[in-house]
Amino acid sequence: MVRAGRGGVSSEFDKIALIERWLTGSEKRAPGIRIGIGDDAAVLSSRGPLVWTIDAQVDNVHFRDDWLAWEDIGYRATQAAISDIAAMGARPLAALASLALPAHFSDAKLERLVRGQAEAAHRSACPLIGGNLARASELSITTTVLGHAKKPLLRSGARPGDELWLIGEVGAAALGLAALERRVRPSRALKSCIARWRRPEPRLAEGLQLRGRARAAIDVSDGLAGDAAHIAAASGVRVLFDESLLLAALPPHLLEGAAELDLDPLTVALRGGEDYALLASGAAARRPRAAVPIGRVERGKGVYLQRGRRHLPLSGSFDHFSMRAPAPRAHAGKKK
Amino acid sequence: MVRAGRGGVSSEFDKIALIERWLTGSEKRAPGIRIGIGDDAAVLSSRGPLVWTIDAQVDNVHFRDDWLAWEDIGYRATQAAISDIAAMGARPLAALASLALPAHFSDAKLERLVRGQAEAAHRSACPLIGGNLARASELSITTTVLGHAKKPLLRSGARPGDELWLIGEVGAAALGLAALERRVRPSRALKSCIARWRRPEPRLAEGLQLRGRARAAIDVSDGLAGDAAHIAAASGVRVLFDESLLLAALPPHLLEGAAELDLDPLTVALRGGEDYALLASGAAARRPRAAVPIGRVERGKGVYLQRGRRHLPLSGSFDHFSMRAPAPRAHAGKKK
Repeated sequence: MVRAGRGGVSSEFDKIALIERWLTGSEKRAPGIRIGIGDDAAVLSSRGPLVWTIDAQVDNVHFRDDWLAWEDIGYRATQAAISDIAAMGARPLAALASLALPAHFSDAKLERLVRGQAEAAHRSACPLIGGNLARASELSITTTVLGHAKKPLLRSGARPGDELWLIGEVGAAALGLAALERRVRPSRALKSCIARWRRPEPRLAEGLQLRGRARAAIDVSDGLAGDAAHIAAASGVRVLFDESLLLAALPPHLLEGAAELDLDPLTVALRGGEDYALLASGAAARRPRAAVPIGRVERGKGVYLQRGRRHLPLSGSFDHFSMRAPAPRAHAGKKK
Repeated sequence: MVRAGRGGVSSEFDKIALIERWLTGSEKRAPGIRIGIGDDAAVLSSRGPLVWTIDAQVDNVHFRDDWLAWEDIGYRATQAAISDIAAMGARPLAALASLALPAHFSDAKLERLVRGQAEAAHRSACPLIGGNLARASELSITTTVLGHAKKPLLRSGARPGDELWLIGEVGAAALGLAALERRVRPSRALKSCIARWRRPEPRLAEGLQLRGRARAAIDVSDGLAGDAAHIAAASGVRVLFDESLLLAALPPHLLEGAAELDLDPLTVALRGGEDYALLASGAAARRPRAAVPIGRVERGKGVYLQRGRRHLPLSGSFDHFSMRAPAPRAHAGKKK
């Protein structure tokens, strides 16, 4: 399954041997993994339902190598994929990664990239057991992850009356990226935000806590409002953020950092992804410790922000707002 | 798990809805598939050992869109990944695909690409149940496939005394590609070769026939000699092709087509990949009907071609031969 791309075979084969070494070998002894790198496919034992995802990170789209160390690039690509497993309330089983590498990409860079992948895999207890090498003109990392969950948490389970829960934080990673884009000298608050963009952590333990408690869950990768729209659509409900609850849930480094960059922290939080927080819904009485209530689920459709008595729509045109824009304008949304 | 890349969210979401339609919906009713497109991850039921692979096809590296219809590009990317499952003697369970698409890539092209993927998935009884969308400057398709096999066939099982078996044909796809590269007006023979390059078929039924018969197997994607080297290295043996047996195994369209292009058919066969034949080894008495003997496994290491009484090395420098080169030169290889 680790396989050289067409052409350049001998050096690709050498790369595979190097990658196997960099991955530390521990992956072969992980439970459930019978065969790792070195055959046409990996072999796993499995019992019970599997959850399975694939995620890609592309140079100059999902990352920029002048803002990230190669270790960070490998780390975040791996954690981003594993986050989908967290959102299903599942436990990771293993991962495979396909690396598309430019011809000039040095083994030294590759080592740093793979060591970052291995570090993430180790941290998430999700052994990286193989993959694929291909040539490309731009670097990309595509990671597929398998996990176990007896009753996977879906996007479609939200019901009117549910509380809306945030697990982890949103907006800091987007703010960190904004700080890098503007080349500001980062304050302590912005440094925290940049660190969160560089080294996201999937909420695996918290995802497991949601089992039997949440009715629906998703990981926040496209932005809080956008991912809430997925829950709303899949569940056939309206998702309503409560502005004061959401503001209260924002961490100090987000508030301070947003002020320094002259951005609206609420808009940053609603649009920000890549912190890999979890957004879930469930009965208030069953809210787990790690979850912070930030709104509720109602009959209807779409995603709204409740500001006092007004309901401001966050779907559709909100999508085209920039983070610099003022908070979303009032709209004749239905009142509760 | 089907997920929009960063930015361009609304049109990405539309694309996902379209893709779901193009995939025909049958994938949700396939056995073992509980949840397909539309959540953070797919959900599957599984019993017994799983085999798992990932494979990438990149524009201008693995394919060129002026030589392939978009349907062909989707088709061959899917079949290439499924071929690894065939090589494990396994039955496909399902596939996920990550599409990296340039910003200008039209929905019309995307439809043709996805319909090609769906056609391959249907033909190989391997439902495509989800995936990921990302932006990129170059098009690539990364496919991950899960399969079931009680006793997966590995590369490492070959033993001295085994017969070497070819299942399917080798060289025709490479010759078809050469015909396209030279822009010749293709004869009937070359048209057959081009068709094999455009629409490869994984040898799934034959792979299942190898169970309990072959000791080792690999699919031929990097070239017959190169993939034999994987078996030799993994099994700690020497693989010896018999020139006369291999020549006898070459189909008429390969012999005719090679003559038209002034290429050595044996070299084309030894170097050619992308037909997705299977190369296996096992006891002569257990050879299945679909397998043609083309050599044997001995003590030692490396890959050799037996020509009369001489053993010509096919590893190392052979790698740099062009298909135009004369047959590999004599070498003081060990005699049998």
